[in-house]
Amino acid sequence: MRSAVVLLSGGLDSATVLAIAREAGWRCHALSIDYGQRHRVELEAAARVASALGAAEHRIVPLDLRIFGGSALTDAAIAVPTAPAEGIPVTYVPARNTIFLALALAYAEVTQSEAIFTGANAIDYSGYPDCRPEYLAAFAQLANLATKRAVEGFPISIEAPIVRMTKAEIVRKGAALGVDFSLTVSCYNADRDARACGSCDACRFRREGFALAGIPDPTRYRR
Amino acid sequence: MRSAVVLLSGGLDSATVLAIAREAGWRCHALSIDYGQRHRVELEAAARVASALGAAEHRIVPLDLRIFGGSALTDAAIAVPTAPAEGIPVTYVPARNTIFLALALAYAEVTQSEAIFTGANAIDYSGYPDCRPEYLAAFAQLANLATKRAVEGFPISIEAPIVRMTKAEIVRKGAALGVDFSLTVSCYNADRDARACGSCDACRFRREGFALAGIPDPTRYRR
Repeated sequence: MRSAVVLLSGGLDSATVLAIAREAGWRCHALSIDYGQRHRVELEAAARVASALGAAEHRIVPLDLRIFGGSALTDAAIAVPTAPAEGIPVTYVPARNTIFLALALAYAEVTQSEAIFTGANAIDYSGYPDCRPEYLAAFAQLANLATKRAVEGFPISIEAPIVRMTKAEIVRKGAALGVDFSLTVSCYNADRDARACGSCDACRFRREGFALAGIPDPTRYRR
Repeated sequence: MRSAVVLLSGGLDSATVLAIAREAGWRCHALSIDYGQRHRVELEAAARVASALGAAEHRIVPLDLRIFGGSALTDAAIAVPTAPAEGIPVTYVPARNTIFLALALAYAEVTQSEAIFTGANAIDYSGYPDCRPEYLAAFAQLANLATKRAVEGFPISIEAPIVRMTKAEIVRKGAALGVDFSLTVSCYNADRDARACGSCDACRFRREGFALAGIPDPTRYRR
C-alpha cells in the first residue's frame, strides 16, 4: 500500500482531503501543527477526524509561530475580522503553508511516502497566496530537488484534490465519502467547547458551503 | 537600511555569510533553529557570532525535529560517521533546509526583509541535496509566490554568497572580514565544552579548509 502524508488542520477542507486520500487507497500519515493558533481546539478536532477516517497515524508537531506573530491567528493583539474586507486579510499567517509543507516533506521522507495531500483551496478562500495552484506547483518543483529520497529516484507529488472546488462542492464530496463534519472545526474564534462564532471568514465560507450544497450544517454556533 | 534574514548555525560557513551581509550594508536578523541537534553547543556559538558580527537581533526558534528522526543528527541511535562514505551520508536531516528557509521566509516577511542569506555550500560539502544552487533557485521561485508581501510587490531574494566557494576560499573570505572563527563550532560531535572530535565530515572539511587557506586553525580538538 502506498503511503502519503496528509496535512490535517481539523477543519472541513482537510477532513475531506483525508477522506479522498483514504478512498483512493492511500495509507495516510496525518500531520497537524500546533503553531500557537488562536483556534487551538482545531487540534482536538484533527485528532478526532484522523481517527474517524482511518489514518494510519497522526502526529502533532509543536512549532510556536507566535515567535514571529504578524497575524490575527498568532498575535492576540490583532483581532479576527468579522466582516469581509479588501485584499489579503489579517488572518494570513506569514509563510504558513510553506512551513507546513516543509514539515510534511520531512515526514514524507521518513515514512517513504509518495505524496503529500493538502487541503489548499483557491476558490472559496481568503485570498492567501500560499493556497494557489501556481504556488503548489512551485512547491512540488522544490520538493523534488530537496530530499535525499527524491534525488535517489523516488519523486514526491503534491496533491491538492480540492484546490479548484467551491466550498459547496467540497461539502458534497465530503458528505458522499462519509465525513462526519460535526467533528470538524473551521472557526478562527472557536471557544474552548469548539462552538463557532458564525461571523469570521472561515465561518462564513463554511456556512455558505453547507447552504449551497443543500446539506444540513452540523456546526454548533455560540448564538 | 535594507533588512535581511541570515540563517546562522553557529558554524564557520554561516558566520562568514553573516560577515558578508554586514559588509554589504544589510541590517541583519539572525535566525537559528533549535531542532534537537546532537551538536547543540552550536546554538551558543551562533549567539556569540551574531553578537560579535553586529546582527541587529538573533532569534532561536525551537522546533524539535527528533519527532521525525531519520538522521544521525536527530536520532541518538544513529552514529555520526568518522570516515568518508559513498552517497549522501546519514548526517543528512530530512528536508532540513526547506524547513529552515520556510521559517526564514516567515521571519523575513514580518521584518520586511528583502533577502534571506544562507550558508549553503555545494563544493566542500557532504552532498546534501538541499545545498545545491538549483535547489536554492527553486526556493526563490517558491518564496516569491508564497507570501503576502511578495504578492504585494516586494520580492525576496535568496542569497547564497558562498555556495560555489571551496572551504579554503570561505576561510580566507571570513578571515579577511574579521570573523573570529574561534567562536564557531562545526563538529557534529562537539562536546559540552564545544571541543571538536576532529573526525566527522564537518571537522574534516573545516580542518582541510584552514590548512589549504594557510590560516591557523583555532578549533579546539578533544585530542
